[in-house]
Amino acid sequence: KTHKIAVIAGDGIGKEVMPEGMRVVEAAARRFGINLEFTTMDWANCDYYAQHGEMMPHDWFDQLMQFEAIFFGAVGWPATVPDHISLWGSLLRFRRDFSQYVNLRPVRLMPGVPCPLAGRKPGDIDFYVVRENTEGEYSSVGGRMFEGTDREFVVQETVFTRQGVDRILDFAFDLAQSRPKKHLTSATKSNGISITMPYWDERVEAMAKCYPDVHWDKYHIDILSARFVLSPERFDVVVASNLFGDILSDLGPACAGTIGIAPSANLNPDRRFPSLFEPVHGSAPDIYGKNIANPIAMIWSGAMMLDFLGNGSGVYREAHDAIIHAIETVLVEGPRTPDLGGTADTTGVGKAIAAALEQ
Amino acid sequence: KTHKIAVIAGDGIGKEVMPEGMRVVEAAARRFGINLEFTTMDWANCDYYAQHGEMMPHDWFDQLMQFEAIFFGAVGWPATVPDHISLWGSLLRFRRDFSQYVNLRPVRLMPGVPCPLAGRKPGDIDFYVVRENTEGEYSSVGGRMFEGTDREFVVQETVFTRQGVDRILDFAFDLAQSRPKKHLTSATKSNGISITMPYWDERVEAMAKCYPDVHWDKYHIDILSARFVLSPERFDVVVASNLFGDILSDLGPACAGTIGIAPSANLNPDRRFPSLFEPVHGSAPDIYGKNIANPIAMIWSGAMMLDFLGNGSGVYREAHDAIIHAIETVLVEGPRTPDLGGTADTTGVGKAIAAALEQ
Ligand SMILES: CC(C)[C@H](C(=O)O)[C@@H](O)C(=O)O
Ligand SMILES: CC(C)[C@H](C(=O)O)[C@@H](O)C(=O)O
Repeated sequence: KTHKIAVIAGDGIGKEVMPEGMRVVEAAARRFGINLEFTTMDWANCDYYAQHGEMMPHDWFDQLMQFEAIFFGAVGWPATVPDHISLWGSLLRFRRDFSQYVNLRPVRLMPGVPCPLAGRKPGDIDFYVVRENTEGEYSSVGGRMFEGTDREFVVQETVFTRQGVDRILDFAFDLAQSRPKKHLTSATKSNGISITMPYWDERVEAMAKCYPDVHWDKYHIDILSARFVLSPERFDVVVASNLFGDILSDLGPACAGTIGIAPSANLNPDRRFPSLFEPVHGSAPDIYGKNIANPIAMIWSGAMMLDFLGNGSGVYREAHDAIIHAIETVLVEGPRTPDLGGTADTTGVGKAIAAALEQ
Repeated sequence: KTHKIAVIAGDGIGKEVMPEGMRVVEAAARRFGINLEFTTMDWANCDYYAQHGEMMPHDWFDQLMQFEAIFFGAVGWPATVPDHISLWGSLLRFRRDFSQYVNLRPVRLMPGVPCPLAGRKPGDIDFYVVRENTEGEYSSVGGRMFEGTDREFVVQETVFTRQGVDRILDFAFDLAQSRPKKHLTSATKSNGISITMPYWDERVEAMAKCYPDVHWDKYHIDILSARFVLSPERFDVVVASNLFGDILSDLGPACAGTIGIAPSANLNPDRRFPSLFEPVHGSAPDIYGKNIANPIAMIWSGAMMLDFLGNGSGVYREAHDAIIHAIETVLVEGPRTPDLGGTADTTGVGKAIAAALEQ
């Protein structure tokens, strides 16, 4: 079987890390006898927008439906296109229109990565953020009134549907159940956000009844953020709304050393639509052009993609594990990019990981 | 002149830390010749709710309007009253109805406090979170439809008004201008929250023009949270919406060691209504009843109250500074509550700070 994969590098360092992601995924596929066919799209980036006045061609949906997965770098070039235009015209569109309702983000303190938290060692931090990825605070309903006057105001709806909330909770409880600790933490803010968040809590309580063997607790997002810093070892699976998941999945990797290595999978679990694999970091205009971005988040996202293609089993799982192992080897032995205190460039680290994989 | 102050201890550890807050504020007032008159309210707590079916008497507004300030412990006892009922029936009501539109929260790494971040020392972390306190994500507009069915959904409006946004930005830029670094950071999420947050950015840009000597930047809340952990020394004044400010003002103190010492001032800057002073921590049902809560957040909030009563000058400022100094002395020399690795109780720490102040 040949797996068809669409490649969208996007903007900024997305263009620099993508070749390394492909290099390592291809090396792993070769080694484990997996057939991949990559097709590079030259749209969904801000250069395309500059030429066409939109981020994507009109038939983007049909084009991408030909693929099992989308390997995605990063979109955004605010100097020329406002972020909300470029993101709602690409990534956020994919997540919603392809029902990629799970955004799965591992948070792990890896060997060789200096931790900003005092006294933590590899293994101490190892959990998943499961982020709702299609609704919640990321809504397109709202607007502005009394524009340009003193009475001006803007409103925007947060929207939680029973279907949307239940399916992400189900995924998260399932994941928790499959792990040794069987522990789930729900991020809420029902004391302050008094309509939507109590509803979230209500659905968590209902879902918990279906998973009697999962221990669960809930924390308001303010104190939960504090606990990420003060006791990250407590967490196993953290389930959160779109916005809270966004915050926690940058904060978690920061506590584990760097967001330069954090991967993510935007999953459509029923596989009716392509799923999308991308680093947590963005296009980072400030460091683009020097080829110094850390390619590990992109490479790790590629490992998650292989795992997904094989349903978490067989040679696909082996390929995933081999990539993680190669990443760990290079994190410990170098070469390293400047964000981890090294002097290597993006290509150098990508090649080193590919070489470690082939050994 | 006698300053009239309403005292609302609230629930849980609010009742334990309040006596220590009063003890130290009274000691400072005595030493610096400031006249205070405290009046304790036996409402705005969950016991009152159990008896009366509401959090406060009907004339709460008129009663509190007699006071210049409200000294506030913490409200919330979720075992008997859902948090959104108790909080929207007290604290959140005060903030909105008394136009306490500034929530000012210092974040400072104090001597004697173990820092969870590696290699940081006192002085390295020293900034303010300026939180919008009346609108934004904390709204009362919204509801539920198709209740109890598969089609069920809830919506809640986020609301930003020009008046509401401009006044908090003005306060924050003013504060930044008064500080040596003159640096302001705006928390946004305009790439994902595509209606309200671009509006926030727009108003920040407009306000920045009125403060040409203030350097400013903006970060999306996800990466900003990460930077609180990775480079807290960068910040000076951070201005944020109600929800983002809530998160950052727990995360900041956690990075600076503990939320047990973090104070806050809910200010009505034009002084038409009483302002409110409270610890950042909540009622902490899990540790209530043992008298082990750290009273320093409450005491520091009392210092902010004295400073406010005197408009930041004269004996009031001296009283404020003397309390901070006494807090620092006790943080270094002990006694300490268990959250800081000590064995002292709430009363013991309160008395020690009062004694240090009187020396
Ligand atoms: C108790 C809660 C409603 C409150 C808030 O969210 O504002 C608290 O977390 C705070 O920070 O003062
Ligand atoms: C770029 C941005 C819209 C996006 C998000 O907020 O979802 C990013 O921060 C992420 O976490 O994938």
